[in-house]
Amino acid sequence: MLKQSALIDPVFHALAHPTRRVIVERLSRGPASVSELAKPLDTTLPAVVQHLAVLEASGLVRSEKTGRVRTCCIEPVALRTAEDWIAERRATWERRLDRLGDYLVKDPDHQEG
Amino acid sequence: MLKQSALIDPVFHALAHPTRRVIVERLSRGPASVSELAKPLDTTLPAVVQHLAVLEASGLVRSEKTGRVRTCCIEPVALRTAEDWIAERRATWERRLDRLGDYLVKDPDHQEG
Repeated sequence: MLKQSALIDPVFHALAHPTRRVIVERLSRGPASVSELAKPLDTTLPAVVQHLAVLEASGLVRSEKTGRVRTCCIEPVALRTAEDWIAERRATWERRLDRLGDYLVKDPDHQEG
Repeated sequence: MLKQSALIDPVFHALAHPTRRVIVERLSRGPASVSELAKPLDTTLPAVVQHLAVLEASGLVRSEKTGRVRTCCIEPVALRTAEDWIAERRATWERRLDRLGDYLVKDPDHQEG
């Protein structure tokens, strides 16, 4: 669990900020330079660079510098890891509800407290 | 966006801690009292209560007190909101890859830089 946690903690942490989610949303539509990412955001360039550092540390984004331009891309594996974690919990919960439903249909006099 | 962000920020923040994810994992299998939740965790009861407060504030968990026992349940709507947000980004990214693939098949001499 610890090894997986070490990977998932920073992904959920990175996604917990609206500006970083806007950046992920933009990058899901294709690569962008840092200044392209900063343009629609109501924040300073150093703040954007800091958000990108959090996203890169989480594994959600990678970037490459060519000359003076740093281009950022999404890393879908990290996105998938977080999505899978949530989906598994939801599936467990839904299976439990199904079992509870079956039980109540078979034995309608009993209800879980 | 701001209204949705106000809902999603605390969900991702809550999921960014391994102890809180263990609690969500346990509750996805069914309701549990605070002491049942605390038992397998390597932490103090006050720390568990604090984690539960973060989970309740995020909308991921709700609790009810009957006599001296507080019972906690999962709230699947918040879990679904976070899952949907990630799934939409991944779908956008995959559609873009598909379009890029089609483009490269039609015109193999061009590659996106």
